[in-house]
Amino acid sequence: MLDSLFRPKSVAIIGASTKDLSIGNRVIKNLVDFEFKGPIYPVNPKADEVRGIKAYKSIMDCPDGIDVVHMVIPAKFVPQAVEDCGKKGVKNIIINSGGFSEIGPAGEAIEKDFLAIAKKYGIRMLGPNCQGIINSDPEIRAYCNFTFTQPDVGFISIVALSGGVAEVIHQGFSEMGIGTRIYASNGNACDITIPEIIRYLGEDEGTRVIVTYVEGLRDPETFMKVAKEVAAKKPVLAMKAGRTKEGAKAAASHTGGLAKEDIATDLIFKKAGILTFRDEGELIQAAAAFATQPIPKGKRVGIITNTGGPAVIATDILVADGLALPPLSEKTKTFLKEKLYPEATVSNPVDVLATANAGHYRACLDAMMDDDSFDSVFVNFVTPFFVDTDSIAKEIVEVNKQKRKPIVCNLMTDKRQWTETVKILQEGGVPGFSLPGVAARAMTALVRYNTIRNREVVEVTTFADVDKAKGQEIIAKAKGDGRNILSATEVYDILAAYKIPMANWRIAGNVEEAEKAALEIGFPVVVKADSKTIIHKSDMGGVAVNLKDVDAVKSAVVEMEKKLAADDLKFFIQKYMPDGLEVILGAKAEEGLGHLIMFGMGGIYVEVFKDVVFDITPVSASEARDMISSIKMAPLLEGVRGEKGVDQKALVEIIQRLSQLVTDLDDIKEMDLNPVIAYEDSVFVVDARISI
Amino acid sequence: MLDSLFRPKSVAIIGASTKDLSIGNRVIKNLVDFEFKGPIYPVNPKADEVRGIKAYKSIMDCPDGIDVVHMVIPAKFVPQAVEDCGKKGVKNIIINSGGFSEIGPAGEAIEKDFLAIAKKYGIRMLGPNCQGIINSDPEIRAYCNFTFTQPDVGFISIVALSGGVAEVIHQGFSEMGIGTRIYASNGNACDITIPEIIRYLGEDEGTRVIVTYVEGLRDPETFMKVAKEVAAKKPVLAMKAGRTKEGAKAAASHTGGLAKEDIATDLIFKKAGILTFRDEGELIQAAAAFATQPIPKGKRVGIITNTGGPAVIATDILVADGLALPPLSEKTKTFLKEKLYPEATVSNPVDVLATANAGHYRACLDAMMDDDSFDSVFVNFVTPFFVDTDSIAKEIVEVNKQKRKPIVCNLMTDKRQWTETVKILQEGGVPGFSLPGVAARAMTALVRYNTIRNREVVEVTTFADVDKAKGQEIIAKAKGDGRNILSATEVYDILAAYKIPMANWRIAGNVEEAEKAALEIGFPVVVKADSKTIIHKSDMGGVAVNLKDVDAVKSAVVEMEKKLAADDLKFFIQKYMPDGLEVILGAKAEEGLGHLIMFGMGGIYVEVFKDVVFDITPVSASEARDMISSIKMAPLLEGVRGEKGVDQKALVEIIQRLSQLVTDLDDIKEMDLNPVIAYEDSVFVVDARISI
Repeated sequence: MLDSLFRPKSVAIIGASTKDLSIGNRVIKNLVDFEFKGPIYPVNPKADEVRGIKAYKSIMDCPDGIDVVHMVIPAKFVPQAVEDCGKKGVKNIIINSGGFSEIGPAGEAIEKDFLAIAKKYGIRMLGPNCQGIINSDPEIRAYCNFTFTQPDVGFISIVALSGGVAEVIHQGFSEMGIGTRIYASNGNACDITIPEIIRYLGEDEGTRVIVTYVEGLRDPETFMKVAKEVAAKKPVLAMKAGRTKEGAKAAASHTGGLAKEDIATDLIFKKAGILTFRDEGELIQAAAAFATQPIPKGKRVGIITNTGGPAVIATDILVADGLALPPLSEKTKTFLKEKLYPEATVSNPVDVLATANAGHYRACLDAMMDDDSFDSVFVNFVTPFFVDTDSIAKEIVEVNKQKRKPIVCNLMTDKRQWTETVKILQEGGVPGFSLPGVAARAMTALVRYNTIRNREVVEVTTFADVDKAKGQEIIAKAKGDGRNILSATEVYDILAAYKIPMANWRIAGNVEEAEKAALEIGFPVVVKADSKTIIHKSDMGGVAVNLKDVDAVKSAVVEMEKKLAADDLKFFIQKYMPDGLEVILGAKAEEGLGHLIMFGMGGIYVEVFKDVVFDITPVSASEARDMISSIKMAPLLEGVRGEKGVDQKALVEIIQRLSQLVTDLDDIKEMDLNPVIAYEDSVFVVDARISI
Repeated sequence: MLDSLFRPKSVAIIGASTKDLSIGNRVIKNLVDFEFKGPIYPVNPKADEVRGIKAYKSIMDCPDGIDVVHMVIPAKFVPQAVEDCGKKGVKNIIINSGGFSEIGPAGEAIEKDFLAIAKKYGIRMLGPNCQGIINSDPEIRAYCNFTFTQPDVGFISIVALSGGVAEVIHQGFSEMGIGTRIYASNGNACDITIPEIIRYLGEDEGTRVIVTYVEGLRDPETFMKVAKEVAAKKPVLAMKAGRTKEGAKAAASHTGGLAKEDIATDLIFKKAGILTFRDEGELIQAAAAFATQPIPKGKRVGIITNTGGPAVIATDILVADGLALPPLSEKTKTFLKEKLYPEATVSNPVDVLATANAGHYRACLDAMMDDDSFDSVFVNFVTPFFVDTDSIAKEIVEVNKQKRKPIVCNLMTDKRQWTETVKILQEGGVPGFSLPGVAARAMTALVRYNTIRNREVVEVTTFADVDKAKGQEIIAKAKGDGRNILSATEVYDILAAYKIPMANWRIAGNVEEAEKAALEIGFPVVVKADSKTIIHKSDMGGVAVNLKDVDAVKSAVVEMEKKLAADDLKFFIQKYMPDGLEVILGAKAEEGLGHLIMFGMGGIYVEVFKDVVFDITPVSASEARDMISSIKMAPLLEGVRGEKGVDQKALVEIIQRLSQLVTDLDDIKEMDLNPVIAYEDSVFVVDARISI
């Protein structure tokens, strides 16, 4: 539990400074200005007081029972200071100073050093090279941080390694008049990790929404585990940067190589049920809506507007993002025709007209709350000077308090003139955005979250009919031989052990066996040379396709025997598959995460259009279905131009079996099933490769 | 010239009211508060003064030489009031009142009525049902408008029919501390149109950037003509809403059926050289950058940052939008290593560190201005409390004043605390955005504009070898017959007249002629029934493909003669084309705009993936090339998997010839060339249809 860090009863500052523009002074100023509820102990060997507060020569001189110590001293002095804190019984230390692992080996050594001391004493460390924490809980009011934004009391908590972005987000809320609950930025994160903080925020009752920013995940397994647990309880909103090669490089330059171009983070977010954003502005604005609004039960939105164009903009975005604007029910229509101006437009959007008064707004809001056609209400509200906008705001707040359906408001006003209207809405918990597009996107985030929350429960199937031991044996053998590429026979044996359907095949040692095998399989067949030493067999003339009779097989094998002089040369005889839809599957080990599973269209689609999707093991049936329907060419699988589609059920099963295979046989580094040919009623793997 | 409207020397208000919350009072208040430089004449039969200004019983009693009259009176009194204004010699009337064409036929009649009177006297009308205009020029300061945002003096002009969105945009600038030059919203636009205002703004020296919002274009031809002229002089930034079916419906509900789901508007924007936006926020933010910054000469951006994460976010967006982050030149590197802190990261982005001072920023800015590797500079600037941020801001302003390369700044601060820093940057003309993503997108807008400005000059080729007369003759004949679908022979004759290459063909009246034709063409051939009465020939058994000899042709013709009992039945014998890449071309008349030309991939690509692009006639060679390279499947045309691509030069020519064809023969309503088969060294139209 991180309670003593986030709800400290007392805070000491080692490195408290009398100089105004120093961190050792600022932290104290922030605590004082934010009205921290506990005592503050500046530690400074030379000063009697700092900012009017009694200072202590050393941490040992301070009163006992210190929950949090800030350290704002040069790195080299930190280990000794941590030792002192240990002796003093300090519970948590926030190291604001830099000069540790972020600067290289020398700093890394110091970090290791003080961490060992901290562990000895059971002290938890935040940072080093970090901003610290803020908790706006009125009982605590801890501003253990040197940043400059004093948050209002709120329900959103922010956590990120990157202090810069955490502060940008924090500042964003502040500018919108939205409060923050807990803020934590842990810099180098040598001890207390992001997942640990997220777990704490999940348990913190005052936190309704968790916002995080990542450039990469250090411990994806733990992150996934924690995020899953927490996201099941409350909305977790996240953004990942470093998406482009250049962005990843920029990230690496300031985190010391942490970030890389990855696709795994997004998949983890998705699997964990995290709502992801690609734009920090949208993240901020969505969080503002989550902080006060209930989650809509569906995608149907009703719009109330007193101006035309902005409602058009909002409609475009809502609809483009998958929301629906159903018509008003007959009852609502009749009711509104009676209540609104005769010139008002009684459809969805309802245009109440610029001259609409509070009663008109209230009538619309009540009607949409009662009308089962709607899951949420979007209010487009410009503040004309000739109506009593305060009264309108009050009615919106009244209905908002009922918390029946979410309300998001596009409040188009001059905040300097309409201060009271703005204040009424803000204090009444109505999220008010100043642009229709922004408000619409905040609404779509609420709806997106509902979709995530209601998605099919992911239950992973474990197939009992597989022969795991056989697979392990094959891999152990290859490892024993020091090989990292499996032979075709080995690969096909593993596929057979996992009941992944393959085009019928036999192995043959010579021409006679090859002919016999071809006759058993039935023509046409393919002949492929198989040897542990031949990797790119098709480049070396080791593949002959569409052989229609025994003679063709014979001459192909003779030819290969001549060309390929391998001691262990064998011939792989396989049914030549008729034309079908070519797809590909693959798996790739991802450190700390199991394997990425890939599915996509084969041939030019994968090579030119990169029409592939990924998920992480273990892949459930519903996730496999999601993968199949997510590729751009999915309509081809469904069947187009009157043609029947392919056997998607079989594909779903193969994806699941592949997921189980690489999970069981976790030495597999990469695996390709390419091509896989899909037909109306079956699917066959034609070629496959495994590296370990 | 609209000078007397936008630069009025005097303003009268018919319908001036003593009531505070009325438009007839507000307009006067706005003029007074904004310090209008000319006299104001309230007209009110009952009051001696309005807001302390002498009132007149009638417009006739006012002093002469009135430039602008506001009318805030019920619609039915407007015609008489316009008549009075005519007699008085008034130059312009802004009708703020509603009750005209927007409410239906009754109002439409009044609108027609007063417009005739205005024309008689040469009065120009703005509106009715409109907000009016604002001009912040210090010599004028005309706030002839009832909205509520008092703009600072600025360089951006806003024009839109929709007052709601115009005001949202205006408010957006105001919130950012960005000034506005001219603001115009013309409501029903019965006389003065959007293109006319845009032309005026193009000539207004104080306007550096024009911002507009449209839901649909009433007179696309004029809009295109004017926009082209103006966009050649200064940046025109536009957004279109009503993109979704629902959005278009919402737009129609408040504009009385003006808006529809269209693709032409975007094409007009593109052709005219307008920079388009899909998000009103981005439009506003980009305009802020255009207002003060020079246009970058290319896509290479240098980033200066004093914080990590936000630079990563900015990098991601810049790169994803096509900008490049080149490395620093050796000279710059050496210079910065000397000038910056030793711990600073001297690459691109340059991380000057949070503790960086004004000198560090100045060194970076100077170096990037001097370094030919960069076309623009992105400054990521968080304001730590421990550095002198005012001095940093001053240095940025100093370099900004040189106007060598554009500077866009992500200013991460608390505006309530860092008021001076914010003010220095604002007054120094440095666009400062509070989020990295927002700032990055403003930068990419500048770069996008440079690309538009430098695009290839569009010179339309006119092919002299076409037989226009022949085409006209065929169409005249069909029109004479009262047909709106041309027969296959007619279609192919027109294509031949425009030298659009077709698969070799003959027309045959009977079996013998068909056999002869097939022999001339060479096997295999296709036989298609041709008759004015047969439209869906393939559904009716009127198509037989891949006929390999005379017998096959004979039996196909005999069969068709039996099945299809048309008097004018003929047989169309055509070369059966071998497999190639199937594409489609099309043309569709668009009112007031010539034709839309379509190009796309054929077969499932058009049916399932809608992989088609459009342009407007006349289509130049470079535009045709753009079309070809814009489809998603363009790599197939280029050649993939080692295969050669298709003859794109021939495709470009066919698109141009099609453009000329429909321009010459403008009775053509729709035309399809489908399929068109493209080969490595040729392209052939296989089938085509024309409706007139």
